[in-house]
Amino acid sequence: MGFREVIEHPDRYDFDVETVGECLLDSPLAATSMRVAGKAGGYVNGQRVLLTRDEAVLKEHFARYGKTPSLELAGPHAKIYHDPMWARAAIVTCGGLCPGLNNVIKGLVRSLWFDYGVRTIYGIRYGYLGLVPGFHHPPIQLDPDVVDDIHEIGGTILGSSRGEQDVKAMVDTLQRMNINMLFTIGGDGTLRGAQKIVEEIKARNLAISVVGVPKTVDNDLQFIDRSFGFETAVYETFDVLSSAHIEAKGAHNGIGLVKLMGRDSGFIAAYASMANTVVNLCLVPEVPFTLDGENGLLRAIERRWATGKTHMVIVVAEGAGQELIAGEEKRDASGNVLKKDIGEFLVSRINAHFAAIGKEVHVKYFDPSYSIRSVPAHGTDAILCNLLAVNAVHAAMAGRTNCIVSQWDDAPVLVPCRMATIERKKIDPDGPFWQAVLSSTRQNYYFHGEASE
Amino acid sequence: MGFREVIEHPDRYDFDVETVGECLLDSPLAATSMRVAGKAGGYVNGQRVLLTRDEAVLKEHFARYGKTPSLELAGPHAKIYHDPMWARAAIVTCGGLCPGLNNVIKGLVRSLWFDYGVRTIYGIRYGYLGLVPGFHHPPIQLDPDVVDDIHEIGGTILGSSRGEQDVKAMVDTLQRMNINMLFTIGGDGTLRGAQKIVEEIKARNLAISVVGVPKTVDNDLQFIDRSFGFETAVYETFDVLSSAHIEAKGAHNGIGLVKLMGRDSGFIAAYASMANTVVNLCLVPEVPFTLDGENGLLRAIERRWATGKTHMVIVVAEGAGQELIAGEEKRDASGNVLKKDIGEFLVSRINAHFAAIGKEVHVKYFDPSYSIRSVPAHGTDAILCNLLAVNAVHAAMAGRTNCIVSQWDDAPVLVPCRMATIERKKIDPDGPFWQAVLSSTRQNYYFHGEASE
Amino acid sequence: MGFREVIEHPDRYDFDVETVGECLLDSPLAATSMRVAGKAGGYVNGQRVLLTRDEAVLKEHFARYGKTPSLELAGPHAKIYHDPMWARAAIVTCGGLCPGLNNVIKGLVRSLWFDYGVRTIYGIRYGYLGLVPGFHHPPIQLDPDVVDDIHEIGGTILGSSRGEQDVKAMVDTLQRMNINMLFTIGGDGTLRGAQKIVEEIKARNLAISVVGVPKTVDNDLQFIDRSFGFETAVYETFDVLSSAHIEAKGAHNGIGLVKLMGRDSGFIAAYASMANTVVNLCLVPEVPFTLDGENGLLRAIERRWATGKTHMVIVVAEGAGQELIAGEEKRDASGNVLKKDIGEFLVSRINAHFAAIGKEVHVKYFDPSYSIRSVPAHGTDAILCNLLAVNAVHAAMAGRTNCIVSQWDDAPVLVPCRMATIERKKIDPDGPFWQAVLSSTRQNYYFHGEASE
Amino acid sequence: MGFREVIEHPDRYDFDVETVGECLLDSPLAATSMRVAGKAGGYVNGQRVLLTRDEAVLKEHFARYGKTPSLELAGPHAKIYHDPMWARAAIVTCGGLCPGLNNVIKGLVRSLWFDYGVRTIYGIRYGYLGLVPGFHHPPIQLDPDVVDDIHEIGGTILGSSRGEQDVKAMVDTLQRMNINMLFTIGGDGTLRGAQKIVEEIKARNLAISVVGVPKTVDNDLQFIDRSFGFETAVYETFDVLSSAHIEAKGAHNGIGLVKLMGRDSGFIAAYASMANTVVNLCLVPEVPFTLDGENGLLRAIERRWATGKTHMVIVVAEGAGQELIAGEEKRDASGNVLKKDIGEFLVSRINAHFAAIGKEVHVKYFDPSYSIRSVPAHGTDAILCNLLAVNAVHAAMAGRTNCIVSQWDDAPVLVPCRMATIERKKIDPDGPFWQAVLSSTRQNYYFHGEASE
Repeated sequence: MGFREVIEHPDRYDFDVETVGECLLDSPLAATSMRVAGKAGGYVNGQRVLLTRDEAVLKEHFARYGKTPSLELAGPHAKIYHDPMWARAAIVTCGGLCPGLNNVIKGLVRSLWFDYGVRTIYGIRYGYLGLVPGFHHPPIQLDPDVVDDIHEIGGTILGSSRGEQDVKAMVDTLQRMNINMLFTIGGDGTLRGAQKIVEEIKARNLAISVVGVPKTVDNDLQFIDRSFGFETAVYETFDVLSSAHIEAKGAHNGIGLVKLMGRDSGFIAAYASMANTVVNLCLVPEVPFTLDGENGLLRAIERRWATGKTHMVIVVAEGAGQELIAGEEKRDASGNVLKKDIGEFLVSRINAHFAAIGKEVHVKYFDPSYSIRSVPAHGTDAILCNLLAVNAVHAAMAGRTNCIVSQWDDAPVLVPCRMATIERKKIDPDGPFWQAVLSSTRQNYYFHGEASE
Repeated sequence: MGFREVIEHPDRYDFDVETVGECLLDSPLAATSMRVAGKAGGYVNGQRVLLTRDEAVLKEHFARYGKTPSLELAGPHAKIYHDPMWARAAIVTCGGLCPGLNNVIKGLVRSLWFDYGVRTIYGIRYGYLGLVPGFHHPPIQLDPDVVDDIHEIGGTILGSSRGEQDVKAMVDTLQRMNINMLFTIGGDGTLRGAQKIVEEIKARNLAISVVGVPKTVDNDLQFIDRSFGFETAVYETFDVLSSAHIEAKGAHNGIGLVKLMGRDSGFIAAYASMANTVVNLCLVPEVPFTLDGENGLLRAIERRWATGKTHMVIVVAEGAGQELIAGEEKRDASGNVLKKDIGEFLVSRINAHFAAIGKEVHVKYFDPSYSIRSVPAHGTDAILCNLLAVNAVHAAMAGRTNCIVSQWDDAPVLVPCRMATIERKKIDPDGPFWQAVLSSTRQNYYFHGEASE
Repeated sequence: MGFREVIEHPDRYDFDVETVGECLLDSPLAATSMRVAGKAGGYVNGQRVLLTRDEAVLKEHFARYGKTPSLELAGPHAKIYHDPMWARAAIVTCGGLCPGLNNVIKGLVRSLWFDYGVRTIYGIRYGYLGLVPGFHHPPIQLDPDVVDDIHEIGGTILGSSRGEQDVKAMVDTLQRMNINMLFTIGGDGTLRGAQKIVEEIKARNLAISVVGVPKTVDNDLQFIDRSFGFETAVYETFDVLSSAHIEAKGAHNGIGLVKLMGRDSGFIAAYASMANTVVNLCLVPEVPFTLDGENGLLRAIERRWATGKTHMVIVVAEGAGQELIAGEEKRDASGNVLKKDIGEFLVSRINAHFAAIGKEVHVKYFDPSYSIRSVPAHGTDAILCNLLAVNAVHAAMAGRTNCIVSQWDDAPVLVPCRMATIERKKIDPDGPFWQAVLSSTRQNYYFHGEASE
Repeated sequence: MGFREVIEHPDRYDFDVETVGECLLDSPLAATSMRVAGKAGGYVNGQRVLLTRDEAVLKEHFARYGKTPSLELAGPHAKIYHDPMWARAAIVTCGGLCPGLNNVIKGLVRSLWFDYGVRTIYGIRYGYLGLVPGFHHPPIQLDPDVVDDIHEIGGTILGSSRGEQDVKAMVDTLQRMNINMLFTIGGDGTLRGAQKIVEEIKARNLAISVVGVPKTVDNDLQFIDRSFGFETAVYETFDVLSSAHIEAKGAHNGIGLVKLMGRDSGFIAAYASMANTVVNLCLVPEVPFTLDGENGLLRAIERRWATGKTHMVIVVAEGAGQELIAGEEKRDASGNVLKKDIGEFLVSRINAHFAAIGKEVHVKYFDPSYSIRSVPAHGTDAILCNLLAVNAVHAAMAGRTNCIVSQWDDAPVLVPCRMATIERKKIDPDGPFWQAVLSSTRQNYYFHGEASE
């Protein structure tokens, strides 16, 4: 492991969008890009990467910053900042479960241990909460044997939690434990928390790298082609959609209604609908719909029956149609507003509508979210987890901080936290991706009577 | 197929509990009992079977009828009633989906076709509704090629429906189609419907056998050791309980709450809890519980936390704790009483309780029912489907009617419909089965503080 | 745990077939029988059980011993032999993997710990080999936390090995470790090893109970209705048979040939063939077949093609047709006889035959054995594992030794090792079970041209 | 469907590498690229796409052709060649099974039917063989109802075959059936066959488009980023590798040896090894290895034992190490050379070696190939199948021929058959992809003693 010279006095470790990486092409540990097939790798060239292909993102970035974004390529460096002999790492998982959390933990531990020789690795319990001593959750020590089989199990061996914690208390803990690398695995809330931790670290002038592995089962973070866990989640939706299809066909005018994850963006719902082509309607947050009227959902269902078909499968993202429910405020016995679920809302409205017009329908409602997100990552998704973890370790060892690791435009890159958290990625209702969904479901026929079947 | 002589003038085809079967021991098609392992078969002896082992059932039967029940053994007969050359069979599936419906259909078709040479077999669409012409669902014709692969798919290729239909209209249809064998696959509602059809058939003096294959995923019919689909359903609960466990461990004081099928009896919940030993509390309809108080559910959860554990899995049958909800009547905007779900009820009450006492808990709720019941039958459960189907065909061909096929006390028997529908089987809270559940979950410790862990 | 009085001076702890158990009906831990559905339990009555139903077994036993076998019912006893405060248990797994090994280990540990308060439980590594110090595999200590999740993973956390070890060295180890209960999980070789250990223990006059949990994925031990792991193994064969069907249909005259476990008996092959009704021929050790001739396998395949079908699925137990291969001795370069695999043998012979007659066939060969036996137990099979484990603990605590726990005739019993190892259970080619297989596959048509399709 | 004007007299329909496509950006059916996450689509711009990123391919192409390759973007065209009212399509599947075949068939049928209104679609049985009347396999007619559920089933509903057929006879059949679009789903042999069919079509001056959907579960065709079925195949290897791990740990010095598909390239083996990080050695055709010597496989296994580990998982692609076996010619009784399997070869050599040095090892051999390739496509892999199918229909309708559809550099393109079949894609042993495999398995330590663990 002696090929890396430890830099004694780095002048900075918070890289900028202008930073040029110093990736080592010849390293046996060279970062590889995650092309899903054959061509994995190939773009690690020690040069600044100008990412030019997603024009909408580029234009927006230019409008905002007056310059084209360039991101540092991830990968091993010729010189590292932290001395492996003295390095002490901590790993924390935050927010909801997602396939691959344990793969990322395993990848971090193995890369720290085998690639760099780091021997002190802590697992923080229950998210940021575990960094606050008052909650009494002591960290656990991790090594390759402890993590050897965890990639076969869903969830996170560390536990997780949501929400913010006292920043000073957390940095006190890092300082007390002599941590100099903190790996945060979490979503945008986690990244915002990480940014606050970085500010406090800077204020105290500490040498602690904070590197994030972005987690969003909804796959809706900017500057991330594909987030870990997403592919597995889509894969797992297959069986529940088949069940919905079977239930729908089991009854006359049966409707299998499946709610899938996706609070602000409907990527899982959209991918799932294209991956199992039993879906007739796919409802996502980005594409508003109405219940009533000639182009409303209820009319769409009637158009389905009018084709002579007696079964139907509808997929709805959890964040779809929220504006419809807002208009239907419900209160509990104490007068509190009840937040109603779009899935249950649609069940009751579809039932009410067809009861009113005297038409028999049978709605079978599926809400499989927890079952989908608690499985272990498989296939290329599992490989992605490991590559992100390895690149996070390379970044932290080289003294990078306040950044996340990502695959963007098929290249492994480091993205500053502040860029990643600007806003969520969404489906463009006018773009070709949504057109492909429409082409697969043919739902424009049902919603708008377009074309004849 | 000529070894069976067609009886020209049978004096009766509605057998009585006193009936002695005429099973052929030497037949290559001898019925086999469904011992789960090795010893399958062995009890087909051409004699009346005196079923003596389940003493509680025997006593109750004796008290009710003044005699010990004896059931005709199922199996092929030396003489058959219907002439295969002229026989026309119809198959109907009713009620909710259950693993194995398609296996039973396939088994019926293959046995009619290959064992007896029956060539006209109709599949009635959407339950009893398909027997009423006004609904316009013409039957489909079935043969071995049509059903060849259906055992690999869940649900029923015929569709199903619930509820009663006009008996006269249905028998009119049977008569018009010249059906002389009707196979009804369904639960106790279906069997009561079958009894009414039989009465109308008798009133018209028609020669139509009506034989039921009892379907109850809850496994709660009398005189049935094990109903088809049950084993597969229990098997399928494994993964969702593991997911609940992973979600529970993923959060601090996480509770994985899983609602499973079981309106009147908790067999699925109980078996599932023993089959995946991650379950800490199993709640079933037969064992009432309270929320509050020293022995209430909320205190039980607190006792779990008091042991130092920070996660918990609770299984609740859908029919459990209904008396608790009755006391919490809720109404919708129109003033109608809302039937509240025990699962959601527990979620809200657990959350409310711990919010009130300022203790953090995270309830993750799973409602996988449709996904569990829409899978195809596997393993010995699939074998059971086929054996029931074959025995139903033997019974109908021999002129039996108004009965169901069953495995009882490890023997294949015919049970009169009126016996099977007397009342549902339930878990005996004082019996050894429930003790085994308690031993597996150790929930008496949580509910009653019994013993120390 | 104080309700059991420790017996100070037991006069014997090697029970005899005449032994009367002292099971406690009122115990909250009453043993329950493993009826697959509803009626679990009910036969624990503190009386000697006369097992009368399997007449063939009874007759043979009578002929051999001059008396009818009676077996002690398993379950908790009013008085126990070993003092839980001083008890030290050891668990060992031997032979090939089988679904449910880890469930049994978990069940043993939990019952020892929670039911009796035993706090010293060793896991012996790699079978009997781990009891011989020279192999340097120190035991691991087990407690409920260590085994909490192991039931979700196939295999055995202890490792396993085959073959005999030095008996004196093993008993030396038990003595040195102050073990007074040894639980052996293994097949007939393991049980014979256990008997030798018991003899050495007796010779040394030690108070060590040796209780076996019989393991045979082939389900072919005597006095055992159903062995743990069998149901899961059958369940797991479903997908591979469907794959074989798909491959067979993917080619013209495609033959999916699947070799399944079963050295001396064909129960897995037979059950699998009935559970997934895509199988056209099922070949087992108990039913010899020939390759050539009018009733040979090759002619059977030709009869299949003659029906107009262009695909076929054949299941062969690994022990089937060994007599055919014996006649085709092959030797390696060194002149050693090569034991040829029945699966590969059939592939080559089928290919050779059809090549010779100029008929195209495409044989797709599947050998999934390891994949089937390395899964975790599910469903009622998992429940069985736990019940066997609990009853093994009851037996050992009560001072029983030289016996195994079993479900026989639906009752939990203790079977002396010498009875269990007399000979293997086999399929009776003339019995109703094999008739049911023939009825499902309809292979008599292919082999013998019986009946027309 | 009227927005496309039918071109009456196209001057050519065999596009050249210089061809500029006329893709319609504004079409609701615009082709979308298959970025695995979020950014799907975006590159359909009606311009020639200059694919510049894979430098090795570019250099080789330039060296060969003296120009940079440019490929026509796939997608709908403003003008189409075939009149949908008169169009008659045929679909054929050739070669071995692969996940997703039925998805592609379904996608072709639905796009022809719904996007273009083509009403005559034939499914050719058993590959090219079904185009030769002498084999008596009449085609089946396909429509959306026939293919509705086939995506849930592995294999191909059409059947398949390998090998060449008489070109004149096949084109006679196409002509006799008035086919004007032939879709061939198959590998490089199929594409070479398609090229011959095209030549014969040209010679006869027929207007028949021949468009291929390239199938290679090994993912080793040129100009194809990712072939359909590959992702699913990798996903499916997860469980068998876990089984191998469990079996290896179940025995002392246990070796789980898994042979995976990959005759000429080791992509499945390599991806599988990274996706389930239980693999210690990954052997592929592109990286030769020896058995003996300091850097041989046997020494590598010994180095594993020397670390104190007592289990090991080895993955071997079926085409790896062929040069080793060549040197070990074996003959059968008749003197014929036996082609020995690398998997069985390694089993026997590993066993022989360790038997010779008196060290116990237990090799558990897995050969799951057929089980892996006969599953249905899931997740994004299923989406890819559909997109390829849709683009194949667009290409054929626009009069393109002698080409395949592909995703290359994240764009949907048409690749001339002659480019796709130049040579197979292989792993570059010096590239970053293989480095990533080495980093995951850490096998250089075992093979070369590099670094200490």
